[in-house]
Amino acid sequence: MNTCETERRFLDYVKKMMNYEEALNLMFWDLRTGAPKNGVEQRSEVISMLSTELFTMSTSAEMKGYIDALEGKELSTKTRKIIEECRKEYDRNKKIPEAEYSAYVKLQAKAESVWETAKEQSDFAMFQPYLEELVAYKKKFISYWGHNTYKYDTLLDMYEPGMTTEILDSVFGQLRDRIVPLVKKIAASDKVLKTEPLQAHFPKEKQRDLSLALLQQLNYNFDAGRLDETVHPFAITLNPGDVRITTKYDESDFRTAVFGTIHECGHAVYEQNISSELVGTPLCDGTSMGIHESQSLFFENFIGRNKQFWYKNYSLLKSYSSGQFDDMSIDEFYDAINESKPSLIRIEADELTYALHIMVRYEIEKGLFDGDLEVKDLPRVWNEKMEEYLGIRPENDAQGVLQDVHWAGGDFGYFPSYALGYMYAAQFRHKMIQDLPHFDELLANGDIKPIREWLTNHIHQYGKLKKPLDILHDVTGEGLNATYLADYLEEKYTAIYQLV
Amino acid sequence: MNTCETERRFLDYVKKMMNYEEALNLMFWDLRTGAPKNGVEQRSEVISMLSTELFTMSTSAEMKGYIDALEGKELSTKTRKIIEECRKEYDRNKKIPEAEYSAYVKLQAKAESVWETAKEQSDFAMFQPYLEELVAYKKKFISYWGHNTYKYDTLLDMYEPGMTTEILDSVFGQLRDRIVPLVKKIAASDKVLKTEPLQAHFPKEKQRDLSLALLQQLNYNFDAGRLDETVHPFAITLNPGDVRITTKYDESDFRTAVFGTIHECGHAVYEQNISSELVGTPLCDGTSMGIHESQSLFFENFIGRNKQFWYKNYSLLKSYSSGQFDDMSIDEFYDAINESKPSLIRIEADELTYALHIMVRYEIEKGLFDGDLEVKDLPRVWNEKMEEYLGIRPENDAQGVLQDVHWAGGDFGYFPSYALGYMYAAQFRHKMIQDLPHFDELLANGDIKPIREWLTNHIHQYGKLKKPLDILHDVTGEGLNATYLADYLEEKYTAIYQLV
Repeated sequence: MNTCETERRFLDYVKKMMNYEEALNLMFWDLRTGAPKNGVEQRSEVISMLSTELFTMSTSAEMKGYIDALEGKELSTKTRKIIEECRKEYDRNKKIPEAEYSAYVKLQAKAESVWETAKEQSDFAMFQPYLEELVAYKKKFISYWGHNTYKYDTLLDMYEPGMTTEILDSVFGQLRDRIVPLVKKIAASDKVLKTEPLQAHFPKEKQRDLSLALLQQLNYNFDAGRLDETVHPFAITLNPGDVRITTKYDESDFRTAVFGTIHECGHAVYEQNISSELVGTPLCDGTSMGIHESQSLFFENFIGRNKQFWYKNYSLLKSYSSGQFDDMSIDEFYDAINESKPSLIRIEADELTYALHIMVRYEIEKGLFDGDLEVKDLPRVWNEKMEEYLGIRPENDAQGVLQDVHWAGGDFGYFPSYALGYMYAAQFRHKMIQDLPHFDELLANGDIKPIREWLTNHIHQYGKLKKPLDILHDVTGEGLNATYLADYLEEKYTAIYQLV
Repeated sequence: MNTCETERRFLDYVKKMMNYEEALNLMFWDLRTGAPKNGVEQRSEVISMLSTELFTMSTSAEMKGYIDALEGKELSTKTRKIIEECRKEYDRNKKIPEAEYSAYVKLQAKAESVWETAKEQSDFAMFQPYLEELVAYKKKFISYWGHNTYKYDTLLDMYEPGMTTEILDSVFGQLRDRIVPLVKKIAASDKVLKTEPLQAHFPKEKQRDLSLALLQQLNYNFDAGRLDETVHPFAITLNPGDVRITTKYDESDFRTAVFGTIHECGHAVYEQNISSELVGTPLCDGTSMGIHESQSLFFENFIGRNKQFWYKNYSLLKSYSSGQFDDMSIDEFYDAINESKPSLIRIEADELTYALHIMVRYEIEKGLFDGDLEVKDLPRVWNEKMEEYLGIRPENDAQGVLQDVHWAGGDFGYFPSYALGYMYAAQFRHKMIQDLPHFDELLANGDIKPIREWLTNHIHQYGKLKKPLDILHDVTGEGLNATYLADYLEEKYTAIYQLV
């Protein structure tokens, strides 16, 4: 077979895998948005069968044959990148002995269910042996996969290709040095924010209509998506012409739905605008967890928590609400939705303190894989770090080291992506404002299109054609730099809390 | 390999096919209930890929190997029936030379699109050559598949296993002899029905709430299903724990949604109650088009158009409507929803005249495959038969021979199932009333459970384990008998139109 013919067959093969994935994603979406409960057991069988099929294809002799035959050949950038992705997945899956991997999958499932109980009972000791085993497995896997100076880098690379401990140490250090003093100043400030109206009753149907109106304004394309309700909000891509988002309505706090929807909108707008040339390939996806999060956070914070955005939309919000904002000025409202105070739970943290939560986790993960930190010491170390970074200390492990599911699922190296998302977003924003100096004015006019187009041109369209740090460099001319996020937060919170 | 091992592998193989089918059905459901339009093209690719996969599996050497190895062996009834189904499908697909089949599929697609235009322009001549070719193909296919006395029987058997021209000639003849005089008497009657309130404005949301309330009463299990909106209503089974229905809301005629929903409920309740032992096999399905239709029609007409049912539900209906029924008595309402008059369009026909529309089509199909009827004569023959059976004559072919899509899709032998559904249903009803003499009282109390359980015990649970005529015989002790439907219609319409 000549190279052309092999390439054609390889691309067909990959396309078939992507088609299976679309079918799988529809089933996931369906399960989380209203599939009747009696059908779930059988549905799980279908999902498991198709997933196995997909896994088998990604590690088959046929796949290996294509990769071996095409690697190093003169091919389009696109095909080369596809081969790179396939090689990465092939190696990742093939290098682990099958029996070990299957034991690990079982452990994962067991660990997640033990973690659930352990969290309920705030009993770390119950979860400890499972976590120890998970860490041991991951260390073994790293030895199969290979690593450079830091073992942890191999894990980071799975979620954020190219990211290293060295870079993170540097940017997290800079960021902490700027955020911690800010948090302390806010704690010492005597500015009182009026937040009660935010928790007034807001009927679900009205929240839904408001969400739809905001999505429209935010350039979410309803010809290529839909909004549904769910317990844990998410965005999911069937294909770039069908990127769905879900949200959750809390009638005693409209922020859950509104900011949740805007957040997922950022994820979805990313995938709606990936170049159609990448459809049917593994490149038709966000390039990394961190860049994905940069898009959702850009929308949620830089647009959705911007004062000008609410100058445009406050009357819209009022028109859907039941009068609770009648005695609240726009400025009071803006301050209230940007309230910042140290809290114990990551997913409830505000824009300012969020990154500190991530740093606690990052330090621990680093210590586990490249330091001498032992699992049994996690609760103590967690609490010490929380006190050091946020000035508060969990009273129990449920509110501390047991709060997140990630480690129970074996996901080490994932947490940094969240904080990276903040930094990427701020760095993009800095550059965007140079290109679109009327950024605030655009928000005040509800004219999001130029902003969305800037993001599409610089980021969205490429999918996985470019690695995260390449995108960052191409857009901003430099590597990861924490200064932009720190500057932004300093400016914003100094104004809100009238700090000096 | 021993028989046990072969059987196990065969059943796994078949289960995999059923899993593919579930994924496909979810994609169909999704496309018809709100999938965003920009994703449709790529979605079609996924559907086409999975369908091809399924077709390949049903005609593979592996499938043939299983069938050959297991046929005639001592196996459970269930496995024997599964093999029978697989053999049938294998033969049906394999006996046609591939090139011919693929040319036929292309013709089908072309013919459907030509038919659409021909119907719009009421131009039979435009469609005629395609219809001629379709008939020619089907005749050739019949020669591959084989036939007994009548070629048409081979087509009938695809939708209604065991059904024959001989049986249909006899029952349709009997039925016609009883219905036609009844239709004439009604035309001559001077009873005037008050139907205007039926077309008063009925808000969509209210119709939806009413539909949900009725479905609940009708034993539709919402833990194993859901109701959505669509353009062309349908019921679809993912698995017996997930059987979904859709409906269409016409604000100027609530009957579309209410009776449509009740109709689909009958289909869905059938599949929700197939024995869980059949899940993952091709037996987990309605046994035939006709038996399926008997369940939907039982619900729609024998329950939903029964007077006692409305004694129970008229105030419920009123509570959702906007006052249009305030001056209409229950009896007037009952008469109105049972109005009968000859009409040109099958899908708008009432309970009494519906079967006559089917007979027109049946006579024509029979003539095409076993008689000397030629395609070019269809418009003339159609109009003559309409005049003979219903006393009215279409003014153009759009309202006549071109009205249905079935023939353009190559579906010959399908139409009789609709009329069979009516006859089966009436025959089941006759027997049910012997077992449940308080049938009317149950409806008056909204107590549908005993009725549903009777249907489950006698029909639903078996899926395809029993053939349609076996079910009929096991339940009623006799073969197909048109008398029951004729008696029912005579009694009902004599009362409504006060005939003598």
